[in-house]
Amino acid sequence: MTDLPRAAAPIDFYFDFSSPYGYLAAEKVDELAARYGRTVLWHPILLGVTFKATGLAPLTAIPLKGTYSVRDIERSARYLGLPYAHPSSFPVPTQHAARAFLWLNDRKPALAREFALNVCRAYFVQDVNISDLGRVLDIAANLGVDRDALSGVLAGTEIKARLAAEVDLAMARGVFGSPFIIVDGEAFWGVDRLPQVERWLAEGGF
Amino acid sequence: MTDLPRAAAPIDFYFDFSSPYGYLAAEKVDELAARYGRTVLWHPILLGVTFKATGLAPLTAIPLKGTYSVRDIERSARYLGLPYAHPSSFPVPTQHAARAFLWLNDRKPALAREFALNVCRAYFVQDVNISDLGRVLDIAANLGVDRDALSGVLAGTEIKARLAAEVDLAMARGVFGSPFIIVDGEAFWGVDRLPQVERWLAEGGF
Repeated sequence: MTDLPRAAAPIDFYFDFSSPYGYLAAEKVDELAARYGRTVLWHPILLGVTFKATGLAPLTAIPLKGTYSVRDIERSARYLGLPYAHPSSFPVPTQHAARAFLWLNDRKPALAREFALNVCRAYFVQDVNISDLGRVLDIAANLGVDRDALSGVLAGTEIKARLAAEVDLAMARGVFGSPFIIVDGEAFWGVDRLPQVERWLAEGGF
Repeated sequence: MTDLPRAAAPIDFYFDFSSPYGYLAAEKVDELAARYGRTVLWHPILLGVTFKATGLAPLTAIPLKGTYSVRDIERSARYLGLPYAHPSSFPVPTQHAARAFLWLNDRKPALAREFALNVCRAYFVQDVNISDLGRVLDIAANLGVDRDALSGVLAGTEIKARLAAEVDLAMARGVFGSPFIIVDGEAFWGVDRLPQVERWLAEGGF
């Protein structure tokens, strides 16, 4: 009797579309995982919901820390070789983008990934207000998604309940921020933990 | 007419003696700076005071984030090759240690540095409660400091006003957490920013 070949488990990547550090991680996580033969499951979450559980507030709203944070985000983008222009409206609600991602991801994961990256780049590079439903539909339509079909889905109650359940599940797994990466049960919070994620993947823990 | 030789400005390193990430940075910052011909000025602060300004709370007191944080601290210590045992009382007040450091640092900076590292190691490796004045005096006395003289200083009002003024000054420079490093006017928060500090030192900014 022989063992079936076992693929390593996918990595879970949680992010909010309005999280700058989430965007930076989104640009890096697939490539990092692939170097170790791993795939990534993307999970959009809503920081507004996790903030209620933790009592935390958006970074830029905190005295002293807020001023620092914008500078740190811009510097971290340069450090990682990524473009960044702080959005004129920040943070913004990201329900539409998150729900659209879930619907696409159930059908065409690769397309959903492309959609997610385009949403992030629209917000964090081109200053497109991604809280606007029309802009989210535009981004999807530019990738060949049926605009009317997606619009109908986003107007329904089913996808709203689905996103709420996804966020509840994330919190049940301990997720409280963005980006948040879980590798074989080990949790890593922040784009600055990517070097630790890499070592974890390379050594199977440390 | 020739220019006088110009030494690069020292790096400012802010930390609270009860901050785990501050301890990890304290073990690394001098060596990192020295590789780029820089010295470091150490500044103990009181996170209890900065938390009032920012509305932040000790990491481990925050739902979800607290559980993660202890695990992240222990993993970050392993990542950096440093010993760590989470103290049985955490966090603790650090006024005595901070005031003792300031008094020593005015007189013998190298000795003050050794004292600071020994306080950190006592708390984060040997589970010594460094909020206890007697333990702080022990650590100083073990380095040859006159215990009675230091005890007298710490009982006075002058050193209390001095620490309060040092913390106010730190906050006026934007310091809100530990560790906090300022290099030529550029601020870096967190031991996870040491790679960015290093690049900043190597390239003179990026």
